[in-house]
Amino acid sequence: MAPRNAFYAQSGGVTAVINVSACALLQTARKHPEEIGTVYAGRNGILGALTEDLIDTSIESETAIAALKHTPGAAFGSCRYKLASIQEHRTQYERLLEVFEAHDIGFFFYNGGGDSQDTAHKVSLMGAALSYPITCVGIPKTVDNDLPITDCSPGFGSVAKYLATCIRETAFDLSSMSRTSTKVFALEVMGRHAGWMTAACALAAEQEGEAPHVLLLPEIAFDEGRFLAKVDAAVERHGHCITAVSEGIKGPDGEFLSASGSKDAFGHVQLGGVAPVVATLITAKLGYKCHWAVADYLQRSARHIASDTDVQQAYAVGRAAVEFAIAGKNAVMPAIRRLSDSPYRWDIVEAPLSSVANQEKLLPADFISTDGFGITQAARRYLAPLIVGESYPPFRNGLPDYVKLRNVAAPKKLAREFAI
Amino acid sequence: MAPRNAFYAQSGGVTAVINVSACALLQTARKHPEEIGTVYAGRNGILGALTEDLIDTSIESETAIAALKHTPGAAFGSCRYKLASIQEHRTQYERLLEVFEAHDIGFFFYNGGGDSQDTAHKVSLMGAALSYPITCVGIPKTVDNDLPITDCSPGFGSVAKYLATCIRETAFDLSSMSRTSTKVFALEVMGRHAGWMTAACALAAEQEGEAPHVLLLPEIAFDEGRFLAKVDAAVERHGHCITAVSEGIKGPDGEFLSASGSKDAFGHVQLGGVAPVVATLITAKLGYKCHWAVADYLQRSARHIASDTDVQQAYAVGRAAVEFAIAGKNAVMPAIRRLSDSPYRWDIVEAPLSSVANQEKLLPADFISTDGFGITQAARRYLAPLIVGESYPPFRNGLPDYVKLRNVAAPKKLAREFAI
Repeated sequence: MAPRNAFYAQSGGVTAVINVSACALLQTARKHPEEIGTVYAGRNGILGALTEDLIDTSIESETAIAALKHTPGAAFGSCRYKLASIQEHRTQYERLLEVFEAHDIGFFFYNGGGDSQDTAHKVSLMGAALSYPITCVGIPKTVDNDLPITDCSPGFGSVAKYLATCIRETAFDLSSMSRTSTKVFALEVMGRHAGWMTAACALAAEQEGEAPHVLLLPEIAFDEGRFLAKVDAAVERHGHCITAVSEGIKGPDGEFLSASGSKDAFGHVQLGGVAPVVATLITAKLGYKCHWAVADYLQRSARHIASDTDVQQAYAVGRAAVEFAIAGKNAVMPAIRRLSDSPYRWDIVEAPLSSVANQEKLLPADFISTDGFGITQAARRYLAPLIVGESYPPFRNGLPDYVKLRNVAAPKKLAREFAI
Repeated sequence: MAPRNAFYAQSGGVTAVINVSACALLQTARKHPEEIGTVYAGRNGILGALTEDLIDTSIESETAIAALKHTPGAAFGSCRYKLASIQEHRTQYERLLEVFEAHDIGFFFYNGGGDSQDTAHKVSLMGAALSYPITCVGIPKTVDNDLPITDCSPGFGSVAKYLATCIRETAFDLSSMSRTSTKVFALEVMGRHAGWMTAACALAAEQEGEAPHVLLLPEIAFDEGRFLAKVDAAVERHGHCITAVSEGIKGPDGEFLSASGSKDAFGHVQLGGVAPVVATLITAKLGYKCHWAVADYLQRSARHIASDTDVQQAYAVGRAAVEFAIAGKNAVMPAIRRLSDSPYRWDIVEAPLSSVANQEKLLPADFISTDGFGITQAARRYLAPLIVGESYPPFRNGLPDYVKLRNVAAPKKLAREFAI
């Protein structure tokens, strides 16, 4: 059988290692020219397919492709764009089919989180519904670690390592100064619904009393009185307190605290960010000087402190995606299966896209400590191996030397434009 | 002459490398037992001297001392505490003298920024005024890079490297997503009066169009209209815009954009939270989705991404402090002198404390671009060598393996307590 071309795209919020999966996919595809012809990358995710903006990856050098392994962001551009169902928006699927036919796309690889796996699933359903032969494989990626079935999601281990490192480092800073200055430090962490990233901060503490002292997880309703008591107790006992705060914490009324419109001492409305809300509260109610940080994009782009375990897993799922596709496995996603905690061993298995799409895996109840402000030993056993190992990028002139691909679009074959 | 003991303390906001200077000082002092007896470290800076809380560093192992070289924070505790003049608060100086006499302190080393050099200077004046023989040497340290005479301040190179890395990494993230999501990212940077740290962000850009696109320096009054036009132009041209915002920017009225109302022990207004102000403005006036981060303590404790040049300089000033003291040089501070930009060469010279204390070196006018939103080639030549070289700490279980010293206090010799 003649080789067919492949479409690969990156979708949703990016991570420090999504390009590692891209690297793996491209390197593996190049080893199978008898099955896979050109790999076209969609510019800005599925939008690249809809607009026939297909990057010809074959003109990128081996060196450039290899450098993706140490480059953050999404090398081909990502998007936040969700396909409607085929019933709701049939013309969109007809357009995809038109583009895929024009470029003889026989393989569809979509690299992202829950929404993206949904897109991959819909494209596989489209193939069946419109009798277009296409093999669809999702590739997991999300800092949120909220994908089901897979034991963890590539991207999470690196942000976990980054955050635990930040907590440990700021603890050395804060505890140096707390006698005469700041007593409390609050770090705001991503994760709107699932507390995996906030939980990972707890890895910084190896001994009783070490930071972080209080976690605010989105799975637990915020209780002002209990929180303040916990912070106060930590300051009393250790001289200082570090708290990691999920951006998604909600009050008993179910409203996000960051959208609560709380006011500072001068009556100014807080301008977003839950860390300043929490810091203002601590200072107002406990009288402690409080510093706060919001890591935002820093946490998910920090390739310079990526977890080598995460890098290996991101590579493994990218490679497995191609191997699955070549083996004719359709509508699946390579998933990480944990074989043992210590020594940490894992392998790759296949998960049906229908079971992965649009699911959100929250922190299980037995990972959260009884008081709701910390994690259990079970959580620690789960999290600990994911941050192990360093995978430094090369540096040039004192800064990480990341690659920018040429990203040249393949000539269009269709006359018709498609409005997004 | 019999050896005399030394007092060493760390003061002011900490850095990623202040312990490198401590390591150098202790290692060098241990090589000169004929001149220097025990090095006592003040717990929490000068407070340790006033309260006779003197840490006996002689019981720390060589290994622990060596590990200070890769540990952030202040190993002996720092403080924000400013000595009044001897005229204003004579009892405080008499207390210092009493403690120093009781422990035969003949050398006073004080490691900090401008306020701390003032303390070292005052102690040297006290020695003369009260006829107590003591050799006082200041050791420079500040992320602000605002000390005069020294070409740069240990601590600055590492925060500069951290910030430029953050800008580069978030640019890969933002530019991946900007087609369908966030268009602007604002990073808030420390630096109350001097824009050195914000200027360092510009090192991330090596080619025209690369981030950061707009700097907001504290040396330039914030002009809303011109700023918004600059951001809008960047988005139009590059599809996205990254802006680095000094916490200390002031409006045309001279008021901080971010004043939170509280003040520290020196009477300085506590800042923080200008990024959300700027982000809200951008979204309200330009309609762009904007993300923001506040690095706060993350930036000054990020030992994991320290500049090796900075580490070398922090070591050199710590070693030189001991060498100066042994040579009988009093009321001086080792300063870094630049010999050439490229190749970067530097050495250590002495600066009189009287010229260093309480001075603030702002960004010179010829370092700021004509429009006020960027830096010049002269600034780039100055900044570039300071971030060169990596100096990774060891990692254990996926996290930096930092040292905590035993910090055992020497037995008190004085009956009297001293109220701070």
